[in-house]
Amino acid sequence: MTFTPTDYLPYDFANRRHIGPSPAEMADMLQVVGAKDLDALMDDTLPPGIRQKEPLDFGKPKSESELLHHMRVTAAKNTVLTSLIGQGYHGTVTPPAIQRNIFENPAWYTAYTPYQPEISQGRLEALLNFQTMVSDLTGLEIANASLLDEATACAEAMTMAQRVAKSKAKGFFVDENCHPQNIAVMKTRAAPLGIEILIGAPEDLDPTAVFGAIFQYPGTYGHLRDFSDQISKLHEQAAIGIISADPLSLTLLKEPGAMGADIAVGTTQRFGVPVGYGGPHAAYMATKQNYARAMPGRIVGVSIDSHGNRAYRLSLQTREQHIRREKATSNVCTAQALLAVMAGFYAVFHGPEGLKAIAQRIHRKTVRLVRGLEDAGFAVEPKTFFDTITVDVGPLQSAVMKSAVDEGINLRKVGQTQVGITLDERTRPDTIMKVWRAFGIMDRDPGLTVEYRLPEKLVRTSEYMTHPVFHMNRAETEMMRYMRRLADRDLALDRAMIPLGSCTMKLNSAAEMMPVSWPEFSLLHPYCPQDQAAGYLEMIDDLSDKLCDVTGYDAISMQPNSGAQGEYAGLLTIAGYHRANGEGHRNICLIPMSAHGTNPASAQMVGWKVVPVKSAPNGDIDLDDFKAKVEQHSETLAGCMITYPSTHGVFEETVTEVCKLVHDHGGQVYIDGANMNAMVGLSRPGDLGGDVSHLNLHKTFCIPHGGGGPGMGPIGVKDHLIPHLPGDPNTGEGAVSAAAFGSPSLLPISWAYCLMMGGEGLTQATRVAILNANYIAKRLEGAFDVLYKGPTGRIAHECIIDTRPFADSAHVTVDDIAKRLVDCGFHAPTMSWPVAGTLMIEPTESETKAELDRFCDAMLAIRAEIAQIEAGDIDAENNPLKHAPHTMEDLVKDWDRPYTREVGCFPPGAFRVDKYWPPVNRVDNVWGDRNLLCTCPPMDVYSEAAE
Amino acid sequence: MTFTPTDYLPYDFANRRHIGPSPAEMADMLQVVGAKDLDALMDDTLPPGIRQKEPLDFGKPKSESELLHHMRVTAAKNTVLTSLIGQGYHGTVTPPAIQRNIFENPAWYTAYTPYQPEISQGRLEALLNFQTMVSDLTGLEIANASLLDEATACAEAMTMAQRVAKSKAKGFFVDENCHPQNIAVMKTRAAPLGIEILIGAPEDLDPTAVFGAIFQYPGTYGHLRDFSDQISKLHEQAAIGIISADPLSLTLLKEPGAMGADIAVGTTQRFGVPVGYGGPHAAYMATKQNYARAMPGRIVGVSIDSHGNRAYRLSLQTREQHIRREKATSNVCTAQALLAVMAGFYAVFHGPEGLKAIAQRIHRKTVRLVRGLEDAGFAVEPKTFFDTITVDVGPLQSAVMKSAVDEGINLRKVGQTQVGITLDERTRPDTIMKVWRAFGIMDRDPGLTVEYRLPEKLVRTSEYMTHPVFHMNRAETEMMRYMRRLADRDLALDRAMIPLGSCTMKLNSAAEMMPVSWPEFSLLHPYCPQDQAAGYLEMIDDLSDKLCDVTGYDAISMQPNSGAQGEYAGLLTIAGYHRANGEGHRNICLIPMSAHGTNPASAQMVGWKVVPVKSAPNGDIDLDDFKAKVEQHSETLAGCMITYPSTHGVFEETVTEVCKLVHDHGGQVYIDGANMNAMVGLSRPGDLGGDVSHLNLHKTFCIPHGGGGPGMGPIGVKDHLIPHLPGDPNTGEGAVSAAAFGSPSLLPISWAYCLMMGGEGLTQATRVAILNANYIAKRLEGAFDVLYKGPTGRIAHECIIDTRPFADSAHVTVDDIAKRLVDCGFHAPTMSWPVAGTLMIEPTESETKAELDRFCDAMLAIRAEIAQIEAGDIDAENNPLKHAPHTMEDLVKDWDRPYTREVGCFPPGAFRVDKYWPPVNRVDNVWGDRNLLCTCPPMDVYSEAAE
Repeated sequence: MTFTPTDYLPYDFANRRHIGPSPAEMADMLQVVGAKDLDALMDDTLPPGIRQKEPLDFGKPKSESELLHHMRVTAAKNTVLTSLIGQGYHGTVTPPAIQRNIFENPAWYTAYTPYQPEISQGRLEALLNFQTMVSDLTGLEIANASLLDEATACAEAMTMAQRVAKSKAKGFFVDENCHPQNIAVMKTRAAPLGIEILIGAPEDLDPTAVFGAIFQYPGTYGHLRDFSDQISKLHEQAAIGIISADPLSLTLLKEPGAMGADIAVGTTQRFGVPVGYGGPHAAYMATKQNYARAMPGRIVGVSIDSHGNRAYRLSLQTREQHIRREKATSNVCTAQALLAVMAGFYAVFHGPEGLKAIAQRIHRKTVRLVRGLEDAGFAVEPKTFFDTITVDVGPLQSAVMKSAVDEGINLRKVGQTQVGITLDERTRPDTIMKVWRAFGIMDRDPGLTVEYRLPEKLVRTSEYMTHPVFHMNRAETEMMRYMRRLADRDLALDRAMIPLGSCTMKLNSAAEMMPVSWPEFSLLHPYCPQDQAAGYLEMIDDLSDKLCDVTGYDAISMQPNSGAQGEYAGLLTIAGYHRANGEGHRNICLIPMSAHGTNPASAQMVGWKVVPVKSAPNGDIDLDDFKAKVEQHSETLAGCMITYPSTHGVFEETVTEVCKLVHDHGGQVYIDGANMNAMVGLSRPGDLGGDVSHLNLHKTFCIPHGGGGPGMGPIGVKDHLIPHLPGDPNTGEGAVSAAAFGSPSLLPISWAYCLMMGGEGLTQATRVAILNANYIAKRLEGAFDVLYKGPTGRIAHECIIDTRPFADSAHVTVDDIAKRLVDCGFHAPTMSWPVAGTLMIEPTESETKAELDRFCDAMLAIRAEIAQIEAGDIDAENNPLKHAPHTMEDLVKDWDRPYTREVGCFPPGAFRVDKYWPPVNRVDNVWGDRNLLCTCPPMDVYSEAAE
Repeated sequence: MTFTPTDYLPYDFANRRHIGPSPAEMADMLQVVGAKDLDALMDDTLPPGIRQKEPLDFGKPKSESELLHHMRVTAAKNTVLTSLIGQGYHGTVTPPAIQRNIFENPAWYTAYTPYQPEISQGRLEALLNFQTMVSDLTGLEIANASLLDEATACAEAMTMAQRVAKSKAKGFFVDENCHPQNIAVMKTRAAPLGIEILIGAPEDLDPTAVFGAIFQYPGTYGHLRDFSDQISKLHEQAAIGIISADPLSLTLLKEPGAMGADIAVGTTQRFGVPVGYGGPHAAYMATKQNYARAMPGRIVGVSIDSHGNRAYRLSLQTREQHIRREKATSNVCTAQALLAVMAGFYAVFHGPEGLKAIAQRIHRKTVRLVRGLEDAGFAVEPKTFFDTITVDVGPLQSAVMKSAVDEGINLRKVGQTQVGITLDERTRPDTIMKVWRAFGIMDRDPGLTVEYRLPEKLVRTSEYMTHPVFHMNRAETEMMRYMRRLADRDLALDRAMIPLGSCTMKLNSAAEMMPVSWPEFSLLHPYCPQDQAAGYLEMIDDLSDKLCDVTGYDAISMQPNSGAQGEYAGLLTIAGYHRANGEGHRNICLIPMSAHGTNPASAQMVGWKVVPVKSAPNGDIDLDDFKAKVEQHSETLAGCMITYPSTHGVFEETVTEVCKLVHDHGGQVYIDGANMNAMVGLSRPGDLGGDVSHLNLHKTFCIPHGGGGPGMGPIGVKDHLIPHLPGDPNTGEGAVSAAAFGSPSLLPISWAYCLMMGGEGLTQATRVAILNANYIAKRLEGAFDVLYKGPTGRIAHECIIDTRPFADSAHVTVDDIAKRLVDCGFHAPTMSWPVAGTLMIEPTESETKAELDRFCDAMLAIRAEIAQIEAGDIDAENNPLKHAPHTMEDLVKDWDRPYTREVGCFPPGAFRVDKYWPPVNRVDNVWGDRNLLCTCPPMDVYSEAAE
């Protein structure tokens, strides 16, 4: 007798775990959308001309346990040494409670950027703690909620200085003591903008030649200098002083604000975020209050809700690419929210006393190390230091470095005769002994010391982190509950669909997340010897191959650590190509009106001029306008940036024609990969005519959004562009990020996803993403107009529904609908983008039919409420939409509304027992921007606000 | 210049993380309790005669990162081979989503046993899923929510059979195919109860000689037999038929119920719970409906709440030791709730199709393995099998086993000439090839097969797991949300204090929990060669040494896997000692009336007669009564069981006198370690006169309660008892659990706690636990009477407050107060134990002053409500206490109460934004016991119930 095996396979991740609808559900849904099967739906949706020829084939997919086994084998190929290389990357101890309750907790890592403040109060509070910590440590009034890495933060500071400086000089001074990767990235950024980088010793600064200057503190070789004089001379010339500072050192050292600095930047990596072979970690920026509106990145601020209660929100949101577009000089979009949250909690965990004690211990260990070296006759520089020293060993440099590696220690190669050593929180007495042995000092006991070697004039005298949150009880029980309370205030993917158009909020599976925490991935220094990172390199090679297969490109650069960085890096690559061909004058970039706001900003950053292209009434690119502009700018056409499928959620048939037009006129085609989730396995941008694309690994390839970052934006390019890809930030030219592979410790997630799905699974995910979107569009048909459809009436993986008519018919705004969706237990779809007054819905393949139905039920119920207003049955101002979202407080208080509590709080879609309650009513955006408060507020501010 | 280092040390776990109150808070609290300092408070509280002489000294405590490093070094000393030993322990794949969202999530692992059903609906539902799965797979009507391990489950089934069988025969038949550890534990259990164990082949069963019989299915050597005939013959003699079955095999094989079995037992370990060197895992028991009330362990049932809505609860709670006490023949208290939850989710994750497919794959792999062996001429037994076979290799047994180890495989030694092989979910094709190579079969390809070798008559024909929960959408997104929703319905330590007297709900820190998930601890088979467990053995040795230091004993046995098991093992040890001294007749055990209910049950289980001792009016042991009874039973006195400090929360001064009395009359002293949290570092049971004690590692030593287990109850003994400790269950005599070290994969938690706290930290924890309890007692003074205090007016680490007077004065019961505390956001204190109508409060050292105050505020507010009833200001029946707990539904509905919504739902203590809402109103216990329904109910049952 033989078995009839069931169809349930061990490697069924794709079919049973990642993809939401079951086969039976899909059959029902196909019936609703009126398609025979998925193949037929795809044929309806994707024009035949753009379909890829060969199916994706990655071999047999892996089961979860095979995947984890494979990951362990790969991880074991990395060698974890103790890296004392420093250069902005430091050993740190992640408090286990933070690792478990934040980093490994889906309530935190699956959350979206807090654009909907009512459902984001928890992480907004955590980010405000981060900002307050940065502001206090740097001695500057306002800080943002993180940037991508220290090097890009330096570059952002440089361009911000240019924006705010009254000096019109073209030069920008860079301290030669800046970390090499910071200098590299600033150089890349400066060139297209016409900024002249002047590198030198701080003493050599000519303040009349520059609009700003940046200094590293402590210097990359360990020196500690007071930059007050330089900064005051800069101010005399109306130029801007910037200090890139290690925030841990600032617990002991005079702060940038006290030196008069206008801007401080740096990285908070050593606040409990593992090095991870380069990232992700949260960089910071702080500045003076009067420059607040020029600061890039997201800023959390304090406002009030409709009842006058305190509420957090993102302040000054509309400063960014939303309004400036082609005039923006920053394209910052993604932050490093999850890592900033971790760093902020690290500060709450330790408080100022704790941080200071950690810094003191590191410093004392450095003093002990130095005494051993000095006693043995080595020349140690500098004489006063925090945690970093440089030792001249003459011709023995490589001998000492090798000897250190044999002891399990990586030192830094400095010039041809020196080695650099930086100690950190993980340094133990035997670490010091190992370093000594590498220098031939045997059997010395590290002992204890209370001596210190900070320059007396640079000892910090001001207080910091005085807010009660940094002085709360630090028992783990209390901390755990604080983390839980904040998590519970937010709505993330672990509770409900987040149907955000263009953001692809899909499953981030537990199996994919696990390897990220393993020491073999988390503890590598980005500048460690390559042979120690063999596992990483193997993974990066294989993932790159797979992404090439997916996109139809010939090579991938993993360096861009956000989507916007990817755009910028891609355009730089094109610019480099034109220059190499002697066509460096090409500087016109065509961008459709509907593009992501980061597109024009990125074009501007590479020095190009943006020429907008109109949309046709059906939402497609207006081909006539496009043709006219290509011809008009034929001589100077650098290229175009298009999104595919379009931001209107449609596969445009004309895409190949558009690409051909651009190529015919000497331009290159950038295809934005934001919507790759609608293409994987079905269509390849490289085949359509694209020369370069970025991929949002945090959208299509399962890296979680983390409440607003981390992200990864690698770019794929065709052969001819390979020579112009970003260089190594530590050794090469043209770097765009601080680490060669961006934020490589995230890559196990995307790799795991590809390995478990296989080519067929990835393709099926795309097909189901399109099915899910079409199902929603169908269910909402009649109630809402879908703005753009393909010629057969299908949409791609997302759709735009038009809510503008309700403004006239019922005084209902898109905001009212979004907030009412909170009552139903949902994060709103993307609001007013790419078309003002609309909602863009993207369900992704991970949502089940039941969840899609819950969402559609909610939307239809909201439409019915609008209809009641339209019919005059309920008041146009005093109704559930205007009062949304409803809080528990509303329920408790006397109820004077013309509708019942039940109607207000439990509209269709809302769970009963498992109801999500927003902690605040609708947040007042205007109040927040008018009363800009971006650090933790004193306890009495709210009661005043309420009055 | 030198530093003034801050007092913030890296190894500050004890002072800053584990212990709740900060030094400043402690100073305030000492003032409230009226003590100069902690030393003075200890002097007040602990009689000088019982204080320990030398402070605990474990050397320098470790910081969290030092601890994790030390754990990694220790873990690396374990060697993880692929164990195909079987014998009830199998490789399994824990779905990563379950590992992350259940096992590593404090919302699940810090929860308490669901005695308060209103705040436990989530885990009750999860446990009901487990019961339904067990009931369906075994084909029996009712299952409990887990037992400790398969061997103890067999023993429980044996004694249950004795309770329910009408046959009065003394014999109990044990299939020789039972796993050796099952036989060992049944033998231990049978002896003191006068049960005669008859071991033989199933064919040899004489049904007239026995009250019951147990069969293993599949047999330990792989045989599959239909026991229908044997069971029907047993039934003819009014005897009971028991089958111990592998639940995974039951997806393919005829189920015990279909063979007529009255009871089925087994382990669900292979349902996603790692082997962990022996435990913890959830054993199961299922039986026929008419035996439900005789079944040991906890049973989740379905009832309704005060509004008629469905509500889960523990059914038949009062069956246990609560009422039977000295007549009980089971002392089961702890279950393996967390592991049962995991196994239940594993079943939900895979559904019946998935489980069946897993079983089929394992079977097909076994067929492939066998064909290779047969083709090479090996004698394989049996001819039909599920996953286990035995191969006779003659004199080459040890050669084959060693050869397998060289291939990375552990096989089972069977007799002198055979080896056993059991495959599992983790078996891969290369595993089969390795086994073949161990047998000298080279280069054979495992290939594929659809052949199967199950006995055709034993192929299962009935359906199972038809309930919708096992057919829900199995996408990870849906599963993750289901786990989150259930977690959110419950109140655990991650949200609020759980002030349960005698249960010591302290912090289970993340650092302590992390190593438990590491493969080096989780993947070892309990019967693997000792040298592969070197890390475990080193840890067990060191932890034992430390526990000896803490208790004043000379040796520790880690075998008992719950507190009650520890009691039983301790008493067995004493009994063995008496026997060895020729005093086997000693069988009188003195137990104070206030003892834990498990005490008399345990005494009964070793065949002793319980003689209760009265309490004096002050709660102490009535010394006169004690003396009288010791003298009365001098000749037959086996010993006494006392709890110290007493269950009344007081350090009795007379303890040494009591011990001396017992010793003088030839008895031995068992000191129950349930209250060790009041003693560690201050007083040692071994010094007081104890001969043996058990320790609840899940109370004092930080193993989390897991929603009702796992627990660990190791015993410490004096030198003279060492020879009588439990033997190895696989090879020795007198075993009490299935694995030599009980549930060893939990031990890293307790070890980590000791290593991070150091002796000083452990002692400080005790001191603060006592401070916290005295602080609460002081704050409640005047409002509530504290029942028992020491002579100086102090209490130990817990206190009993008297709520009995309110029954008369205000018609308020202890239940009303407990449920009202839910409105305040708290789990109630221990109810009606050890004194009916009282509340016993134990805060532990981990709670901060703020949380203690929140609790006291709540209690005082409740007292004020009682006072209002007493004064006639509010109605005695229609008031917030009687309607407690209030749900969100109450708030939404029309409100016809004489108090406001605000008063009802937000009493003092309740959080506003972070309010915890119970999902149901007060649960109707009577309805539930009257309408016993202990599997997932069909969807329509609730609406009927509501009528």
